[in-house]
Amino acid sequence: MNKPTSQHEFETPKVTTGPLPSSRKVYTHPVADPSLSVPRREIDLHPSANEPPVPVYDTSGPYSDPSVIIDVEKGLPRIRDGWVQARSNVEEYEGRPIKIEDNGGATGKHLAREFPTKHKPLRGVGDGPITQYEFAKAGIITKEMIYIAERENMGRKEAVANAAETVAQGESFGAEIPEFITPEFVRDEVARGRAVIPSNINHPELEPQIIGRNFLVKINANIGNSAVTSSVEEEVEKMVWATRWGADNVMDLSTGRNIHNTREWILRNSPVPIGTVPIYQALEKVNGIAEDLTWEVYRDTLIEQCEQGVDYFTIHAGVRLAYIHLTVNRVCGIVSRGGSIMAKWMLTHHKESFLYTHFEEICDIMRKYDVTFSLGDGLRPGAVADANDRAQFAELETLGELTKIAWDKGCQVMIEGPGHVPMHKIKVNMTKQLKECGEAPFYTLGPLTTDIAPGYDHITSGIGAAMIGWYGTAMLCYVTPKEHLGLPNRDDVKVGVITYRLAAHAADLAKGHPAAQIRDDAVSRARFDFRWEDQFNLALDPETARDFHDQTLPKDAHKVAHFCSMCGPKFCSMKITQDVRDYADTLSDNEKKALQLEAEQGMSEMSKKFVEKGGEIYLSESGEKREPID
Amino acid sequence: MNKPTSQHEFETPKVTTGPLPSSRKVYTHPVADPSLSVPRREIDLHPSANEPPVPVYDTSGPYSDPSVIIDVEKGLPRIRDGWVQARSNVEEYEGRPIKIEDNGGATGKHLAREFPTKHKPLRGVGDGPITQYEFAKAGIITKEMIYIAERENMGRKEAVANAAETVAQGESFGAEIPEFITPEFVRDEVARGRAVIPSNINHPELEPQIIGRNFLVKINANIGNSAVTSSVEEEVEKMVWATRWGADNVMDLSTGRNIHNTREWILRNSPVPIGTVPIYQALEKVNGIAEDLTWEVYRDTLIEQCEQGVDYFTIHAGVRLAYIHLTVNRVCGIVSRGGSIMAKWMLTHHKESFLYTHFEEICDIMRKYDVTFSLGDGLRPGAVADANDRAQFAELETLGELTKIAWDKGCQVMIEGPGHVPMHKIKVNMTKQLKECGEAPFYTLGPLTTDIAPGYDHITSGIGAAMIGWYGTAMLCYVTPKEHLGLPNRDDVKVGVITYRLAAHAADLAKGHPAAQIRDDAVSRARFDFRWEDQFNLALDPETARDFHDQTLPKDAHKVAHFCSMCGPKFCSMKITQDVRDYADTLSDNEKKALQLEAEQGMSEMSKKFVEKGGEIYLSESGEKREPID
Repeated sequence: MNKPTSQHEFETPKVTTGPLPSSRKVYTHPVADPSLSVPRREIDLHPSANEPPVPVYDTSGPYSDPSVIIDVEKGLPRIRDGWVQARSNVEEYEGRPIKIEDNGGATGKHLAREFPTKHKPLRGVGDGPITQYEFAKAGIITKEMIYIAERENMGRKEAVANAAETVAQGESFGAEIPEFITPEFVRDEVARGRAVIPSNINHPELEPQIIGRNFLVKINANIGNSAVTSSVEEEVEKMVWATRWGADNVMDLSTGRNIHNTREWILRNSPVPIGTVPIYQALEKVNGIAEDLTWEVYRDTLIEQCEQGVDYFTIHAGVRLAYIHLTVNRVCGIVSRGGSIMAKWMLTHHKESFLYTHFEEICDIMRKYDVTFSLGDGLRPGAVADANDRAQFAELETLGELTKIAWDKGCQVMIEGPGHVPMHKIKVNMTKQLKECGEAPFYTLGPLTTDIAPGYDHITSGIGAAMIGWYGTAMLCYVTPKEHLGLPNRDDVKVGVITYRLAAHAADLAKGHPAAQIRDDAVSRARFDFRWEDQFNLALDPETARDFHDQTLPKDAHKVAHFCSMCGPKFCSMKITQDVRDYADTLSDNEKKALQLEAEQGMSEMSKKFVEKGGEIYLSESGEKREPID
Repeated sequence: MNKPTSQHEFETPKVTTGPLPSSRKVYTHPVADPSLSVPRREIDLHPSANEPPVPVYDTSGPYSDPSVIIDVEKGLPRIRDGWVQARSNVEEYEGRPIKIEDNGGATGKHLAREFPTKHKPLRGVGDGPITQYEFAKAGIITKEMIYIAERENMGRKEAVANAAETVAQGESFGAEIPEFITPEFVRDEVARGRAVIPSNINHPELEPQIIGRNFLVKINANIGNSAVTSSVEEEVEKMVWATRWGADNVMDLSTGRNIHNTREWILRNSPVPIGTVPIYQALEKVNGIAEDLTWEVYRDTLIEQCEQGVDYFTIHAGVRLAYIHLTVNRVCGIVSRGGSIMAKWMLTHHKESFLYTHFEEICDIMRKYDVTFSLGDGLRPGAVADANDRAQFAELETLGELTKIAWDKGCQVMIEGPGHVPMHKIKVNMTKQLKECGEAPFYTLGPLTTDIAPGYDHITSGIGAAMIGWYGTAMLCYVTPKEHLGLPNRDDVKVGVITYRLAAHAADLAKGHPAAQIRDDAVSRARFDFRWEDQFNLALDPETARDFHDQTLPKDAHKVAHFCSMCGPKFCSMKITQDVRDYADTLSDNEKKALQLEAEQGMSEMSKKFVEKGGEIYLSESGEKREPID
């Protein structure tokens, strides 16, 4: 029994690497600071398309770059280390010693291996700017802001060049999305509190990214071992896997043993911001007994995680004692773990939450490391019956108060939102959040638009997510098909991420993001031209698209076929449209005018030309007449 | 080679039968006509719930009733035969002889077996009412209308009895959804053209059902063999399978050979309305050469299908010659098969579409059998870039004109809609359709809200479907995960149907349907009480819900566990909420008032009581203290 266990504990995590199909990693260098290398992915199309590669936002980090040697034992390159160190107001220090309870008391063979390299933590000192918010308020454009401007702009120039047709005119509900993103625009949005750049100074491995409603809608994927199952290796690969498919952020919601060591492996290898809910680990430290929680244990946990490099903390400081009774008549009561833990603590002690009473001190700690607040919605509705009730909105109002305190303390803030909300009650959530929280970015879980489809909650919530993203939510927390039922596996994580990527993209399109439609149009042209390979490669999930096609028509020849399995060769509407279009191309301007005129009159001259010019000949890609298949 | 083929051709279709988990088929008898038996499904809950069974709308017909012996060779009971025959204005006649081209020229071993029983067709005669629209206009309530009122009401009395909390207050965008549905309300909605009852007098096997925005949102599933693959058996089972999971209507989009015989098997065994696109079969009759189509071939095909009992026809009569050039600069041109066939015909002959020029004659034919128009959107956008363009809206305006003609002729009408539409462009589709088409029911395909997710188009379109359903679309045509890629298999059909059921339900909730939330609340209470079996059984897809749960916690003991795999036993928020609630229950009214008061003041008296009363004891279902799992 010993052998497999210890083998397991000390195995080097294996992660998924390599480019996506037909994709290259490209690095560009912002004019404002050419030393920066900002990644994007470019998807190459078939030469017959005669189109430039399609640029797409890339969350996958160096893992998808074949020129980078990945060594999970060493972690990713610490690209921001120099940026942070070059600033004044930071110092390296010894840091808090790791305690046995940090790993839930795991020792010996039960203790997950420590990450091989120990970096000394940094912390901010003095009153000068430490956080991105403070730099922004001081009028200083950080390297992170320059990086982000370059990253977000991806494709906009091309969009504007191709002008009117591809640039969507959306309905942004008051968002102010510029044609181009400048570093100054990034700074201004951060200074106004309308956007956050989660970027702990102790997570130099991350590729900076911004969350705000005037930027691309972001998504978050949750990972984390639970008390029921666990493994360090799995968690690191889950993070890599989720970012490969498009997770902009990852929350590590681990519980049980080995939380500290697992998180260290994740952080040192993560190109995206990592969020946590510190109360989970604090609760482990008091053996899962909520009423034994203390401010001191919680505070110590915050510092532990700040030093490791966690980029944002969910803190349920808006769950106040006075609000608990508001949940008693709910169908599903309190469904947030953090919220219910604090509710139990408050009822037992009959005291106000220490997260609320110590909020300013929490701000002081988080500011020193530039950890972003994700003010948790501990009273979010867990059933459509409970949506938009007094408990939920009372908490939201308190989150608004706390937002202002955190800003005063120099911290970055985003606000978490529901949950389970029927469609007609979604918009008021967004409107109220903007109003109460001074336009701080909203970060919602779905919302799920019905409760009746367990097994399909990625879809019930994807509907709500697309809508609330359109209305102005800056980040969408994914939901997997296993929601309410079990722990997501690798496939579930992928389905959840792809579903939320498509929801976020639908929101970007509807908001009128200047470049969002570039990819849609490229897919649609590929579809129209029967460039099957391009259609697969441009898809959010090229593997699944290809697999679904090949289930009916597996042969390579069918990848260049000018028909598909749905209609077969005789019925293809796209081919007929091509005939119509080819015909139109052969006409002179006068003939076109005549066509319009005749259309009204019903004459038959033009029809002869259509037949003469080959109205029924469908050419295959090689230019030969197509053979029908059976 | 002969043997397997003929075996195959003459095999009796095997179909899926039996009840869904914990479900019973219940028949109720309307007061207005107790001779009618109107089905619904009731889901029984665990005794510990102490709740009545949850009634749900049931589209599955006798297949899910274990007391009915299913014999596909005989077809379903012809329940409406007597209803129709009892009316004046119908006559039995010999009908059109079946021709070789009806089955695409298939003969001998290639010809699919005929359905064993041949019924003589009925047709309307004279000027008296034949269609449901004509009866409604004449102030006559048909048995179909009584049946439908009973069917739609399912659960409303219970909802109103439980009052305020469960009855949702939605946003209906001008729909007028009553508290109860009376037969007179059904009649009135049909008379106003706001609802249709697809019910060919030659399809007496169907269980009547209504499509209109003041009724439950309906969904349609497409089946049909294609030129690439085919089998009669598969198609009948696809219909049974789709209705088992909730398809209210099924369209048979078969192409290739054996269309006639396959359709006969489907119709004689279908409890739901069957729709077709007659131009597909007409095209087969002219060997797939669009320009060889004639009005005579099309007319003959209409009569053939009217006599068989097809309930609604998609007719692309709005694709006019003058509109074709509007599609030339589109990214995806014409993506409707019917639309593109007619475009090719019109361009070749340079004539107006015979569907348009012969529209009144088409009405006269369809009226005689009460076949409902589904006026096709042949110029719908096939890419978000093409959404809401002039081609699309020009056709919609023409569909409005045709609607009025069809009503004048006594026919029932619904209108098909897009397609690919980004979220911000969806609402105007609904608004314009209501305006142009005099509130005739809208029947949309999705719409897909982005083009970039092939393999997930059930989701991209489920988002649009839920939204447009909320805005007022009466029926949603499903999209499967294989959309754009291949032919859906059995699993894809199920995923498509469930996705659209949840979208339709989300729409019902948001519109404020009085009884919609009953099922959500039942699921949520089951979830809160850890009644896992009830949660599975109440789900749209109980099999998948159970399977997902069991992937992590397979043991039967876990079905009664008061925790789940996501959080494990220590962290369960629902359990903590239960503690909070149990505590609240022990309080007197005065104590509750005191609690509220104290909450503001922060005293500690109540907390002692919480501890005394067992604040940390989580009871298992049997009342014993729970053992933690590892």
